Amino acid sequence: MRYSQLFGKTVKEVAADVRLVSHKLLYQAGFIRESVAGRYYFLPLGIRVQDKIVAIVEEEMNKSGAQKMITPVLHPLELWEETNRTNSVGFELMTIEDQRGARFALGGTAEEMMVDVVRKFNVSYKDLPFNIYQFSQKFRDEKRARGGLLRVREFLMKDAYSFHTDADDFKKEYDSMWKTYETIFKRVGLDTIPIESDNGYIGGEYCHEFVVESDAGESRFLMTKDRSYAAHEEVAVFKREVMNPDEEMLPLEEVEAVRGTTMEEGVKLHNKPLWQQIKDVLFVDEKRRFVLAIIRGDYSVNEVKLKKAVDALELRPATDEEIRDTLHSEPGFISPVKIKEGAKKGTEIFIVADISLRGVKNAYGGANKKNSDLFNMNIDRDYTPDLETDIASPPADCETEDGKELIEGKGIEVGNIFQLGTHYSTKMARAVFVDNDGKAKPYYMGCYGIGIGRTMGTVVEVHHDEKGMIWPKAIAPYQVHLVTIGDVQKDADKLYESLLAVGIEVLYDDRDERAGVKLNDADLIGIPLRLVLSDRTLKNQAVEWKGRAESEAKEVKLSDVEKAIMDFYE
Amino acid sequence: MRYSQLFGKTVKEVAADVRLVSHKLLYQAGFIRESVAGRYYFLPLGIRVQDKIVAIVEEEMNKSGAQKMITPVLHPLELWEETNRTNSVGFELMTIEDQRGARFALGGTAEEMMVDVVRKFNVSYKDLPFNIYQFSQKFRDEKRARGGLLRVREFLMKDAYSFHTDADDFKKEYDSMWKTYETIFKRVGLDTIPIESDNGYIGGEYCHEFVVESDAGESRFLMTKDRSYAAHEEVAVFKREVMNPDEEMLPLEEVEAVRGTTMEEGVKLHNKPLWQQIKDVLFVDEKRRFVLAIIRGDYSVNEVKLKKAVDALELRPATDEEIRDTLHSEPGFISPVKIKEGAKKGTEIFIVADISLRGVKNAYGGANKKNSDLFNMNIDRDYTPDLETDIASPPADCETEDGKELIEGKGIEVGNIFQLGTHYSTKMARAVFVDNDGKAKPYYMGCYGIGIGRTMGTVVEVHHDEKGMIWPKAIAPYQVHLVTIGDVQKDADKLYESLLAVGIEVLYDDRDERAGVKLNDADLIGIPLRLVLSDRTLKNQAVEWKGRAESEAKEVKLSDVEKAIMDFYE
Repeated sequence: MRYSQLFGKTVKEVAADVRLVSHKLLYQAGFIRESVAGRYYFLPLGIRVQDKIVAIVEEEMNKSGAQKMITPVLHPLELWEETNRTNSVGFELMTIEDQRGARFALGGTAEEMMVDVVRKFNVSYKDLPFNIYQFSQKFRDEKRARGGLLRVREFLMKDAYSFHTDADDFKKEYDSMWKTYETIFKRVGLDTIPIESDNGYIGGEYCHEFVVESDAGESRFLMTKDRSYAAHEEVAVFKREVMNPDEEMLPLEEVEAVRGTTMEEGVKLHNKPLWQQIKDVLFVDEKRRFVLAIIRGDYSVNEVKLKKAVDALELRPATDEEIRDTLHSEPGFISPVKIKEGAKKGTEIFIVADISLRGVKNAYGGANKKNSDLFNMNIDRDYTPDLETDIASPPADCETEDGKELIEGKGIEVGNIFQLGTHYSTKMARAVFVDNDGKAKPYYMGCYGIGIGRTMGTVVEVHHDEKGMIWPKAIAPYQVHLVTIGDVQKDADKLYESLLAVGIEVLYDDRDERAGVKLNDADLIGIPLRLVLSDRTLKNQAVEWKGRAESEAKEVKLSDVEKAIMDFYE
Repeated sequence: MRYSQLFGKTVKEVAADVRLVSHKLLYQAGFIRESVAGRYYFLPLGIRVQDKIVAIVEEEMNKSGAQKMITPVLHPLELWEETNRTNSVGFELMTIEDQRGARFALGGTAEEMMVDVVRKFNVSYKDLPFNIYQFSQKFRDEKRARGGLLRVREFLMKDAYSFHTDADDFKKEYDSMWKTYETIFKRVGLDTIPIESDNGYIGGEYCHEFVVESDAGESRFLMTKDRSYAAHEEVAVFKREVMNPDEEMLPLEEVEAVRGTTMEEGVKLHNKPLWQQIKDVLFVDEKRRFVLAIIRGDYSVNEVKLKKAVDALELRPATDEEIRDTLHSEPGFISPVKIKEGAKKGTEIFIVADISLRGVKNAYGGANKKNSDLFNMNIDRDYTPDLETDIASPPADCETEDGKELIEGKGIEVGNIFQLGTHYSTKMARAVFVDNDGKAKPYYMGCYGIGIGRTMGTVVEVHHDEKGMIWPKAIAPYQVHLVTIGDVQKDADKLYESLLAVGIEVLYDDRDERAGVKLNDADLIGIPLRLVLSDRTLKNQAVEWKGRAESEAKEVKLSDVEKAIMDFYE
């Protein structure tokens, strides 16, 4: 490709609100342009990278035995109603009606569609297992798009769905997809960590995210040094210490406490440790039930864990009015002790205690009235939670149940694999296969996703320097960036044509531009290999050769360059 | 691929409403399944064909110098409002609002989007020309889907948009795309005829459809035997004969005519030729203007030509009430003579005469009242049309202006190329490039589409027999259909693996099924080459070889089969 003819040249200026380095570089180098927030044009350079990622994913999926197909983008809304997901999905579903009144969801994930197409066939145990996948445009009506390719509202996704006779057979595919994902991400230049994670709106019993460590990521996770345990904070299990085992249980005592409403003010006023304080967080769920989450003062409640624990679709913080008027308590002074008894008649309050509180004796905290605190609150004696379970976000310094140190990490989720079991096939009609005993049984399923655009953005987050992007060889938009300096057009044309002739992908900067501009553009675009042809190199019948990731350039004879490129890309 | 593991096996039954042979065969063979009317799943066999078509289109587009990119599926509705196409498009645009109230159109064609992305760059004459294209899912809220892939509501389309400094530069690209399309369609196995056609909702001044002759088609066109002239009936120009040049003009005469309202009843009553009668067709446009189209009695009015002639977005037939109450005329007795004078005050009537009427002297027809006809109506003397132009659908037997016979054809439109000129760039803000005189000028544009799924359906319409499909080699889902008869699994596995090892694509029917079932399935699926391995062939260390398009089978030695396949596919 002659750069002079390329649509989508480099620019210097970036909008002030561009925060992610991948967004900045992909924009400046002419790989992407925003249509409106969260929706991107992929320009010619950008789509070349995306296509290469797609090709690698496709190759590895096929190698694993998965079969490519495709579903329509518009999903009949009835299907989502069959599984009751029109209201429960974690992203906002976009829906549309056609002129005949038929209603559709814009595909955000395709479990229902894939079950729908499979149930159109009379599948028997002999036809199972199979894994069908697609590359298709997905839509998420995200409240907040981040800018760049890491969190968008429309994106290309590889989504796969496997169908099995039973859990054992599924488990083999789960392992196979796990390995396939490791291979895929390695090939595109990413070091991924598979972490246990929450299945969210997908359903099923367990799943793993593949994350790439990066400060730009939104997934916080905990893992052991040897990576034998790694889990998203939303599911990570960690050990709660017994803080004061030797302390005597003291009698419950109400004290005056003229203080503000923060935890710190309680600590300061009473001169007691933060961990001994009870943190009370009050939510209201979609059924207007109050959910009081209580936890050791130095921990924080993880809303995903909490939602799951109390089986809520949505949780919102209770308002000050609700706390006062309905619970007859006081913001900043909530206590599990006698809160149910004090509340307005008929108020449903569900108290969930994190297991950490069992390790805290003589806890202190509010007394359900202004400027009053309780000392020496003890679980079982003074308050009895409706549920005692793990609702804590793991702190930065924690360890596994068996005492291994857990390291905190932040990462970008580039893929995920889910056990679905019969979550969908039992909800949807006729989603059955005939087993070898002649009986109809629901399919046992799994699903497996990779965000293609996010993978591309993540590669840039990981592979760049202050001058620009540094593409891994396997997914670079071109293999060679050929730059002319001075009036060497004729020789450069010849070299360009000869490289094309042997199938080498070349971006050829044939512009009549200053050397500095062209070299800066080459660094920004980040093609792994730069060749510069100038009068100086031509004197030696050579070309200047510089790997984008290397600091030093060298000369390579024109007669050797083809072979050298082949070797470089082997 | 082992057929036993393939998702999407053959079935016998077809729904009663399946009319197109391509729909029937693609369904039975397991290439496609309908989600809801006009929206299809492409199953593993189907997507392999689609992917091969895409690869050919991409290869040829790239060869022509076009650059692939992609736009979001959701187009900001403001862009369509900029060009005033939210109301004027020929297909129903689907629109959707997100949770922040932003409105979008589901992409049906992408002129606005492509202009939008180009205007984000400060393009100069040095950057032009370029042609950018995408493969993307398109949405048309068609009132009527046909079943099968020929007319659907959601489909993959290759749409390209070229940007130029001027008409001359554009013309080169138009010719280049013309040639590229001919190559593409030839490679996928289609003989296309480029026909002049109407630009419809796309805009611009001229365009061509690439049609494949087929009774399943919806495009009626006229062409000379040597194809030097070929045009859609909506734009085809044909010669109007002067019917009665030697007749004297006779005085206008009103006669009693107790007859029904059809043309035939007029012919019968007056015993005069049909061609001498004036056919009056009355429409109302979107501005409530009456449009009276008049034409020689044996011709019919082409609504597309008429719409264009009178610059109307929509035309609907006038009602009997409007004819009586507003025009003070009578259904079946309308006449251009004095109709304006007789109508209700303030009624706007626009009379358009087809040029055929100039060749008819002493015409007869209604007298704007019941049971009254006029004889000897003559243009210019008795009535003066507001516009005299070509509004006729060419009849089956007609000829060009210079006397060449025009043959009637019916075909499927698989692609089209459009001159757009500055139609979009003048309507959209900042859609300009800086020319070498330093002035900002609107881009001169063209656009070029190919329906990928429709191309696939058309191939089946053209290439099949009573047993099933016959795929052209270049786009067959697999190259070889390997079938075992009897217990030869071990040898077949070996052959299968050896063919895979050299990169031959094999569908391997390894099922424990009757020979008849397997051979019928092979014919239905239509892979160009079938190899049958059985005890009989193994005795000769051979395999039975049969081309799908051939009637006779032969034996090929196992040792030679690899080479023979390579030769077959050369």
